[in-house]
Amino acid sequence: MTSLVTTIEEMNQISRQCAEDKKRIGFVPTMGALHEGHLKMMKQSVGENDVTVISVFVNPLQFGPNEDLAAYPRDIQTDMAKAETVGVDYIFYPSEQEMYPQWPTIEIKAGRLASVLEGEQRPGHFDGVVTVVNKLFNIVKPQQAYFGKKDAQQLAIVEQLVEDFNHPIKIVGIDTVRESDGLAKSSRNVYLSEAERIEAPHLYQSLKLAQRLYNQGERNSATLIAEAQNYIEQHTSGVVETVAVYSYPELVEQSKISGSIFISLAVKFSQARLIDNIIIES
Amino acid sequence: MTSLVTTIEEMNQISRQCAEDKKRIGFVPTMGALHEGHLKMMKQSVGENDVTVISVFVNPLQFGPNEDLAAYPRDIQTDMAKAETVGVDYIFYPSEQEMYPQWPTIEIKAGRLASVLEGEQRPGHFDGVVTVVNKLFNIVKPQQAYFGKKDAQQLAIVEQLVEDFNHPIKIVGIDTVRESDGLAKSSRNVYLSEAERIEAPHLYQSLKLAQRLYNQGERNSATLIAEAQNYIEQHTSGVVETVAVYSYPELVEQSKISGSIFISLAVKFSQARLIDNIIIES
Repeated sequence: MTSLVTTIEEMNQISRQCAEDKKRIGFVPTMGALHEGHLKMMKQSVGENDVTVISVFVNPLQFGPNEDLAAYPRDIQTDMAKAETVGVDYIFYPSEQEMYPQWPTIEIKAGRLASVLEGEQRPGHFDGVVTVVNKLFNIVKPQQAYFGKKDAQQLAIVEQLVEDFNHPIKIVGIDTVRESDGLAKSSRNVYLSEAERIEAPHLYQSLKLAQRLYNQGERNSATLIAEAQNYIEQHTSGVVETVAVYSYPELVEQSKISGSIFISLAVKFSQARLIDNIIIES
Repeated sequence: MTSLVTTIEEMNQISRQCAEDKKRIGFVPTMGALHEGHLKMMKQSVGENDVTVISVFVNPLQFGPNEDLAAYPRDIQTDMAKAETVGVDYIFYPSEQEMYPQWPTIEIKAGRLASVLEGEQRPGHFDGVVTVVNKLFNIVKPQQAYFGKKDAQQLAIVEQLVEDFNHPIKIVGIDTVRESDGLAKSSRNVYLSEAERIEAPHLYQSLKLAQRLYNQGERNSATLIAEAQNYIEQHTSGVVETVAVYSYPELVEQSKISGSIFISLAVKFSQARLIDNIIIES
């Protein structure tokens, strides 16, 4: 039975009761519009913890002025039904007023890790992410929290948040879930036109092409980037915003590759901006 | 019996055990050099909670480059003995390496509340305070935390931190403890020369003078400030840095007084910079 929790006070009480009962809390923060990627994280949390809490909150702080805050898909009934199927115990579903009775005056800045890639493209985005994740961690007080590797930069920043702020929480990164044709699951895929939806799996193909070249010994980032970008431009109508090679999790741009990296891309379609990446462990 | 805890991991375990045992934690963060002001806070915590934790940590982040970080008095044995007399259970006494294995890259900015008074005089000071207090809250996980009203701006900022970050912690403000001659207790009083120590109680006298004028109906901040400043200059060798009237806890400068205020001063002696204030409730 999945319960909806709408106030911070009630969530605090549940969290405190779990601590008293020696029950471990697993936590999956989401903005709703749940898809299989989310469900995979929830399933893993249900398997690894006594109690699983998810949050459904479209965080206005992490949207830029020209982004899709108003249009972002919202359907709590459907989300609740999906969460129920995988055994989620609580959905924390606060209003904007509950989370931000006023805008924070004590601000969190994501800093250096947010100065590249998505952070560079979306100024303030990761400040908003760390602000809400920090709030949610204090409200839910989980022992483990689950984040998707699809947002690899976000995952690295959340891990840094936990370290810098001394949250006693283990962050678990979950592999990207893909459609059968390779497209990474995303709540934003609904914005794709029919034609774009057919092209979009080529994003992942471009990453696999880069990985093949890496496996064959290529260590020059510029070559991998050029090949992937060229592939995307030949196979899709999308506009390539970024193809880049960064060390992981330090997020330092690499020209000559050594150590673990991730290859990251962002492509703009008519109504959807899609991101994808692969992490290659050294 | 007061136990010394030097690692974050051990402190986390103690905190978790307290939660499981339904024991409430009261917390008094300090930089050591404990005086009666600290002991008063500890006594209150011991009276109001099942377990009292204090921290002793000279936080380098809240000292400016020309401040007294190296000279700040440190004597853990004496601090421990004092804490023992009032029934403190644990002293969290981490090394700098334990608290800052690296400087945080996810940064906390104290913002608007830190743009005036001490924050204006000491750039970055309150960013350092909120950074360490947030870390300590996550490590100790108290239900109540005690802060002195002597540092009224700090108290206001910590209350804002708790609100903005959703720490489930009640902040308790404790009245300033004074020497019999009125000088506010401070770890920095040891820096005063013998002559300055004799003059220093006039700081509090100047605040009481302003309060008398307020009680007689004076609501013009400039008058209160001028009278207090004049009094300090006539009765001490100190250099007045600040005498100011601010709303409390909003920390907005007041020219015409209405509502709760605090009158705040900072005076520089040869080796010591002293602050004091009185809060006047409307």
